[in-house]
Amino acid sequence: MIVGIGIDVVNVPRFAATLHRTPGLIERLFSLRERTTEDGRPRTEASLAARFAAKEAVAKALGAPHGMTWHHCEVVGDSAGRPWLKITGSVLELATEQGVVTWHLSLTHDGDVAIAYVIAESG
Amino acid sequence: MIVGIGIDVVNVPRFAATLHRTPGLIERLFSLRERTTEDGRPRTEASLAARFAAKEAVAKALGAPHGMTWHHCEVVGDSAGRPWLKITGSVLELATEQGVVTWHLSLTHDGDVAIAYVIAESG
Amino acid sequence: MIVGIGIDVVNVPRFAATLHRTPGLIERLFSLRERTTEDGRPRTEASLAARFAAKEAVAKALGAPHGMTWHHCEVVGDSAGRPWLKITGSVLELATEQGVVTWHLSLTHDGDVAIAYVIAESG
Repeated sequence: MIVGIGIDVVNVPRFAATLHRTPGLIERLFSLRERTTEDGRPRTEASLAARFAAKEAVAKALGAPHGMTWHHCEVVGDSAGRPWLKITGSVLELATEQGVVTWHLSLTHDGDVAIAYVIAESG
Repeated sequence: MIVGIGIDVVNVPRFAATLHRTPGLIERLFSLRERTTEDGRPRTEASLAARFAAKEAVAKALGAPHGMTWHHCEVVGDSAGRPWLKITGSVLELATEQGVVTWHLSLTHDGDVAIAYVIAESG
Repeated sequence: MIVGIGIDVVNVPRFAATLHRTPGLIERLFSLRERTTEDGRPRTEASLAARFAAKEAVAKALGAPHGMTWHHCEVVGDSAGRPWLKITGSVLELATEQGVVTWHLSLTHDGDVAIAYVIAESG
């Protein structure tokens, strides 16, 4: 059964401009491993925008659009390098309350547009 | 089980231009409560575009891209203010025929892009 | 149960430019019936971009972003003209290994943006 779904679109140049003009925002939104690629380079703005969209999509799937602790929902690479959700703390609590057992995530970006879409599924 | 899925993207400036140059279109597409926010203000063009995308996405999920009565598929706020689908009349009939019990909806807009995505699930 | 999901966004003008400057690319990406509409005309660039996005979304849903044989994942019209996935060869093998029984597909384009989204479901 599907508990909730979420989609989020982010305009990459707008998002990048907000990151650049807001001191500390990138650290507040993203954990260190989210900001860095597997081979140790800083992640591109488009890739960060897609990851921010993933966090927003998770919040929508849980019906909790406000006040999420951003680091409690991380996008990490699985063993094959695919983006995956690591849910902890307050977000995990909310998901568990709602019976979420499995998260599905897909990210995409091209041109100015980054999109994430998630499905939260129960057991 | 998933009966059908639908996604729709709307270019907000083009949609807004169509609304402005077509007398009566906004009333034909949207019910009064769809055109108005919870606090009584007219809904923004981006928000209307996302709601139009939701109607198109529902039509796609039902395999019925043409001739939908737009007011038979409304996007309304649930008690927590989340956008929700209210399906009635001809759209409800078609959904019931196909065994749809639950609708999942998510909306998003940023920059010029509004997107809706839906999943129709059976019992 | 959901086996995997995928979303892909394609910037239509960029995709069209790549098609135009790369000899043989359109034939490598798309089968003859994909490149032609039901009434025998060449498919538009936006429609091809959405179909390319569908192939990428299928690859993501299967966790196999690289090296797909593009013709093993075709977007064809069903009897009602709806876009549908025809999976064969190497892509079918991978899907079968993962227990995929049903594919759900939705396509959309407006302005410069084309998007496909898929869900791979088990029995």
